[in-house]
Amino acid sequence: MPANSGRVLLAYSGGLDTSCILAWLIEQGYEVYAFMADVGQEEDFAAAEAKALKVGAKKFFLEDLKREFVTELIYPAVQANCIYENVYLLGTSLARPVIARGMIAVAEREGCDYVSHGCTGKGNDQVRFELAFYGLKPDIKVIAPWRLPDFYNRFPGRQSLLAYAEKSGIPVVQTAAKPWSTDENLFHISYEAGILEDPNVTPPADMWKLTTAPEDAPTQPERIAIEFKAGLPTRVVVPEQAKEYTDAVEIFLALNALGRKHGIGRIDIVENRFIGVKSRGCYESPGATILRAAHVDLEGLTLDRNVRALRDQFTTIEFSRILYNGHFFTPEREFITSSIPASQRTVNGLVKLKLYKGNVVIEGRESSEGLYDEQQSSMDELGGFEPTDTTGFIAIESIRIKKWAQANIRKGQAGVAPKDVYGSRV
Amino acid sequence: MPANSGRVLLAYSGGLDTSCILAWLIEQGYEVYAFMADVGQEEDFAAAEAKALKVGAKKFFLEDLKREFVTELIYPAVQANCIYENVYLLGTSLARPVIARGMIAVAEREGCDYVSHGCTGKGNDQVRFELAFYGLKPDIKVIAPWRLPDFYNRFPGRQSLLAYAEKSGIPVVQTAAKPWSTDENLFHISYEAGILEDPNVTPPADMWKLTTAPEDAPTQPERIAIEFKAGLPTRVVVPEQAKEYTDAVEIFLALNALGRKHGIGRIDIVENRFIGVKSRGCYESPGATILRAAHVDLEGLTLDRNVRALRDQFTTIEFSRILYNGHFFTPEREFITSSIPASQRTVNGLVKLKLYKGNVVIEGRESSEGLYDEQQSSMDELGGFEPTDTTGFIAIESIRIKKWAQANIRKGQAGVAPKDVYGSRV
Amino acid sequence: MPANSGRVLLAYSGGLDTSCILAWLIEQGYEVYAFMADVGQEEDFAAAEAKALKVGAKKFFLEDLKREFVTELIYPAVQANCIYENVYLLGTSLARPVIARGMIAVAEREGCDYVSHGCTGKGNDQVRFELAFYGLKPDIKVIAPWRLPDFYNRFPGRQSLLAYAEKSGIPVVQTAAKPWSTDENLFHISYEAGILEDPNVTPPADMWKLTTAPEDAPTQPERIAIEFKAGLPTRVVVPEQAKEYTDAVEIFLALNALGRKHGIGRIDIVENRFIGVKSRGCYESPGATILRAAHVDLEGLTLDRNVRALRDQFTTIEFSRILYNGHFFTPEREFITSSIPASQRTVNGLVKLKLYKGNVVIEGRESSEGLYDEQQSSMDELGGFEPTDTTGFIAIESIRIKKWAQANIRKGQAGVAPKDVYGSRV
Amino acid sequence: MPANSGRVLLAYSGGLDTSCILAWLIEQGYEVYAFMADVGQEEDFAAAEAKALKVGAKKFFLEDLKREFVTELIYPAVQANCIYENVYLLGTSLARPVIARGMIAVAEREGCDYVSHGCTGKGNDQVRFELAFYGLKPDIKVIAPWRLPDFYNRFPGRQSLLAYAEKSGIPVVQTAAKPWSTDENLFHISYEAGILEDPNVTPPADMWKLTTAPEDAPTQPERIAIEFKAGLPTRVVVPEQAKEYTDAVEIFLALNALGRKHGIGRIDIVENRFIGVKSRGCYESPGATILRAAHVDLEGLTLDRNVRALRDQFTTIEFSRILYNGHFFTPEREFITSSIPASQRTVNGLVKLKLYKGNVVIEGRESSEGLYDEQQSSMDELGGFEPTDTTGFIAIESIRIKKWAQANIRKGQAGVAPKDVYGSRV
Repeated sequence: MPANSGRVLLAYSGGLDTSCILAWLIEQGYEVYAFMADVGQEEDFAAAEAKALKVGAKKFFLEDLKREFVTELIYPAVQANCIYENVYLLGTSLARPVIARGMIAVAEREGCDYVSHGCTGKGNDQVRFELAFYGLKPDIKVIAPWRLPDFYNRFPGRQSLLAYAEKSGIPVVQTAAKPWSTDENLFHISYEAGILEDPNVTPPADMWKLTTAPEDAPTQPERIAIEFKAGLPTRVVVPEQAKEYTDAVEIFLALNALGRKHGIGRIDIVENRFIGVKSRGCYESPGATILRAAHVDLEGLTLDRNVRALRDQFTTIEFSRILYNGHFFTPEREFITSSIPASQRTVNGLVKLKLYKGNVVIEGRESSEGLYDEQQSSMDELGGFEPTDTTGFIAIESIRIKKWAQANIRKGQAGVAPKDVYGSRV
Repeated sequence: MPANSGRVLLAYSGGLDTSCILAWLIEQGYEVYAFMADVGQEEDFAAAEAKALKVGAKKFFLEDLKREFVTELIYPAVQANCIYENVYLLGTSLARPVIARGMIAVAEREGCDYVSHGCTGKGNDQVRFELAFYGLKPDIKVIAPWRLPDFYNRFPGRQSLLAYAEKSGIPVVQTAAKPWSTDENLFHISYEAGILEDPNVTPPADMWKLTTAPEDAPTQPERIAIEFKAGLPTRVVVPEQAKEYTDAVEIFLALNALGRKHGIGRIDIVENRFIGVKSRGCYESPGATILRAAHVDLEGLTLDRNVRALRDQFTTIEFSRILYNGHFFTPEREFITSSIPASQRTVNGLVKLKLYKGNVVIEGRESSEGLYDEQQSSMDELGGFEPTDTTGFIAIESIRIKKWAQANIRKGQAGVAPKDVYGSRV
Repeated sequence: MPANSGRVLLAYSGGLDTSCILAWLIEQGYEVYAFMADVGQEEDFAAAEAKALKVGAKKFFLEDLKREFVTELIYPAVQANCIYENVYLLGTSLARPVIARGMIAVAEREGCDYVSHGCTGKGNDQVRFELAFYGLKPDIKVIAPWRLPDFYNRFPGRQSLLAYAEKSGIPVVQTAAKPWSTDENLFHISYEAGILEDPNVTPPADMWKLTTAPEDAPTQPERIAIEFKAGLPTRVVVPEQAKEYTDAVEIFLALNALGRKHGIGRIDIVENRFIGVKSRGCYESPGATILRAAHVDLEGLTLDRNVRALRDQFTTIEFSRILYNGHFFTPEREFITSSIPASQRTVNGLVKLKLYKGNVVIEGRESSEGLYDEQQSSMDELGGFEPTDTTGFIAIESIRIKKWAQANIRKGQAGVAPKDVYGSRV
Repeated sequence: MPANSGRVLLAYSGGLDTSCILAWLIEQGYEVYAFMADVGQEEDFAAAEAKALKVGAKKFFLEDLKREFVTELIYPAVQANCIYENVYLLGTSLARPVIARGMIAVAEREGCDYVSHGCTGKGNDQVRFELAFYGLKPDIKVIAPWRLPDFYNRFPGRQSLLAYAEKSGIPVVQTAAKPWSTDENLFHISYEAGILEDPNVTPPADMWKLTTAPEDAPTQPERIAIEFKAGLPTRVVVPEQAKEYTDAVEIFLALNALGRKHGIGRIDIVENRFIGVKSRGCYESPGATILRAAHVDLEGLTLDRNVRALRDQFTTIEFSRILYNGHFFTPEREFITSSIPASQRTVNGLVKLKLYKGNVVIEGRESSEGLYDEQQSSMDELGGFEPTDTTGFIAIESIRIKKWAQANIRKGQAGVAPKDVYGSRV
């Protein structure tokens, strides 16, 4: 076994896998420092520290990244309405860049030659972590044991890990492992693998950890209001608690608590991983689901139509893809996010919401931006422009359509192209 | 008053506005035929016919367009996951092309010189109708009274219409007008105008016509299954009714009934009309909401990642905009829809759903397409590819990212651009 | 004729149309101030001023807008590689916002109630001017005589204008009118209308005003170099002149002179106007054509692949459309241009060019950005990454493609979809 | 040395690399069949066959793929105006799918277990070939010697290959190797590597093989005409030759000959390979350059504005990227190309061109499609629509812009956002 292979900073979770990796790295001759990020997950950090040191870590670093997670990752994603494949709010993807950045900062400060993680060789997280490492420190060396034949051939299953743990003096918690794996942070929890790998299996009721089931949520709706400035939530009013929240992190946590109580934010999807494999995942994102609904709604009142359309088609979709694929520390992310502030300048106002058994119901919104004009939009009165203007508008809009229709008629294809699948009669 | 101004086919609703328009057109010397389309709205068509003829229409035409509405408009929109501004399922937009086409067919057959409608000068529907007319019959002449100063100056408000109705022998129903206006078809009902013009007013509970309020919906969830072939629903299984539906129209109506019962498909938004005015609208789309959730989910299991991404960014967004703006009979619609079949070839399978108090919960899905591979996606076993392959993948993916990071470091901008708003530390 | 209808600032060109409009506005009781913008067109401004005052303008304003035209409009368009419908470099579109802004500034300062212009009712420029006016000063009132029936019915053709000019004491130049109309500024000259309206008529050789015909251009190529910083040209080296240009305006003018000499930048197209009418236009953009070629080339060396792809698909296309349609002073322009700086941060370097008889030939480029790495791209040596990494990359890239191919084979559609038009054998 | 490792179909070029690979594969115990595709490259196929058999190939297959190359790959790309990174016409990318398909067909017919190629581990072609193999026959096994350490470590440079050739009885042509490498087919020739790896080195005049230098091209322009049906060239008229070409392949070859004569179609770029490495390439695409110019021009006359805009932004860009990255036999290619026919239905007509010293000059175009209307576009007459219609159009278009401008004024940001980089004065 080589001594002095170098110093490794290991992303440590306290679980069986990374404990075994810790021991194995030491066995390979590395000096190992353990790193944990507090991104809001429920975790006994002290126990994890004790365990890491017991297994042999020379140092242990716990970084509280909650605030930067909320303000630098989550809120830009809220501003851009990020969503992946129509459904997934990107909770794991959003945490990876702050964790990777925290890790690289420690690695640099502590003179580590390597960083290491316990991600499997088939998932997104290995890609997200490593591309983030390289985007921040291109000469960093990465040890990914689950992609090293020496490691994965030696530990083909849970039994071999347990045996190694016993041999290595790694304490093993005697609770039965859940038949799925999870990733938790203050934005969400994810469930995948195990019994969920059959996409037709309904997740058992006791899987869902964060949110009350809608069936068990309060039978009384609860009403709240969220104020936004430049697309960011700046105040949450919760009358039932007689409280207002104005701090960025507290706002998010308050919305989380409300969402959890009212059964909001569960999803169950088959998604496409970056590596091209389809994968089934279940997620709970209570606060984020409320926030997204409110933000999307307020944009209706305060965002120009054309900006919204361009932002939806480009910024939302591209930023979401960038996040999902772990491309946060890249030039394309820099490019895409540079357009967010201009899109959110006018997104100022207040949204009223009702929360009830899984539903986030918009009940009203107001803003002093002035892009909405009751008189102008009113069907009941003239105002804003002459009805005859619309005649001109339609006349101009129809110029090229009439030309096309005339050509169709000349060709005997009235109103329709030869192989046109829809709309073919008259 | 000129006699013999020509023959007009009027889109007739049976209400006060179009009855007055009917009388007014006759007064202007036109011969008027009245046209109604049955697109699934709740309506006393016989009463409307009687009224039209009483007011002076020479003929009355009722066209049942429900099947073509479902199969030629709604289902392509389902295949493409159409949605406008993240929220609106386009129920009114989808009905306009079939109504316009039905009207042009009657106008041609019956030798009408004009078509006419009662849409206001500020809304989307005037544009949708007229662009559809011109796209089908570019030389058709359109009379839009609410944009003619002669008409709108003469009838500045409801009182003047009522007075005219009385004078013209138009029967007026003595029920109090609702403080909003609606448009209904088998896809949805819309509410706008009146008290809804204040976007901060919560719609009154008794406004919602189609759906039970989630609060009043059954306390027991109901489970159903929907089968799709090439992205189209071909079977709906409703165990509670011990029934299966396989006819295209019946499937949609069955889903509607289920959605209405379980409080599904209400929305309340401020949207951007084609003419650039913001407008508040409320909608109920019960069946469509269920169908969309199921279709989006099945695509996760059966649609290739890259096709889905391209389709989401282009087909979904562009087709939705085309529909909303009334550009159905245009070359761009022909172009955009021509790509739908290739996107749906593999969307075959069955989705299991739970309906409960406003929630559409996916509980599982299956397909024989084979794009999902449990062994390949499994985190618990090797299979499908070597973990070392991913090392190569990440190495290649990081090539350009490392170059960018190296340049940043040389410039003293580690991990970040000079004015980069997010992600700026280390 | 009413006196004191108010004060109008008229965009005056010195030609027959705007001189008649000037006289006509006075006849309608307006006090008229004449406005000219110097955007680099060849023009006898003193003669125009004398003429305006002679016809009756109370004041005359000449604004030199060349520098802001170059730095605030042209250069952002160069940075974004703007082009309309694959061919047109947007020379007229780019000038309109600075002219409109100059006009609004004078109108505000001089207390004008109205602005007026001589654009026809069918073109793009009326839209560009008026939308710019409204985007800067939404309450400005616009007089567009060519869209006022009182005016256009009174002056149905050139003869009636000439007659009116004679009657109104407007001096008329006795040169034969060219059988086309032009718009010139320092970016380009456009030709349209008249004999060009037949799209199959080849423009006569003597139409082209700015550039030498390639056939008549020097038989010796000329070599120059252009340096860019953040995507902006900062230095042009012209060895044949033994000169370097570093001032923003001088750079553009120097490139113009070179392009004119070497027959560079003529195009002849049928384009789609904003109002939906197709229109034939010929353009000469000598300097801009050189600049675009150099900028596009340097981006190959210095811009990240993914940023370039996103910028090409979104920023370039959307900003070009915004410019063409006259949407410069709009929220969507603010949104789109906000992403340009992040896209150009690394576009620093020098491009070597050869100019020869209409050709702009790239002969080399260099940069210290370091995104290009000879060793890494070399086919002749290892370096940068292991060849085996690519094996992993291809393996991962092929995962979803193999799944699709397997499904095709199961269905008897090896390698191809049922209705797939291309690639159908094996 | 193992015997009977299986049967390999090797993409054979006749050059040093693939001859050594052939010998090496035999040495590894494989039975090797050699495959060559005739895609229009200049090549002594008989000599290559003799050489392959001499080195030890058991069989030799030459497939003439020229017609399918032109009709199934090149012409769809012409219809879609494909281009990569604004400049490159994709000549190599287009040939790969037909070659791969030809190879898989032979491999299946001849019972080969493997396919093999001589592409390096850093380029695009390895990816294009292998993804095409997998998209057609997902279980095919690929041998890529330049990515196998056993091979590339044994042959670190040209000298070791020459030594191996001598030892293995491989005839070596005694001409000096060019200091660059090339790939040729009937669409183009590419040059890369060697001295071209310095992006600032101007390619030597004698590198360019296909085209006359513009400086040496005829001093007399030559005029031709190209007719298109549904976006495909169906007739080329060459008055100087008193000939017309109507066969698909002959058309392309005739345009190639014209382009070569007149010095058309040279480019020199730094491009971004799929693997993320920047690379310098020079290309000659004479006929394709003419064809693209003509096709783009005719679309101006015959293609609806909105279809063109959507096609440019999506189909052109995405299909070009798909081709470049070797994703031809994929679901996304099937999806993207399915929309081409609808975009080309109206692209019918004739384009007149002048060819002169590197320039392709459009001199006119005609079509019976009728989307262009001289009277309607004429600036000199009323026709098609009322000038007052445009007033309405502008009024409606300005609604949302005025609202935005009013808000800016209220905030003291007349005409501009706070951090807006452009357009900031007034």
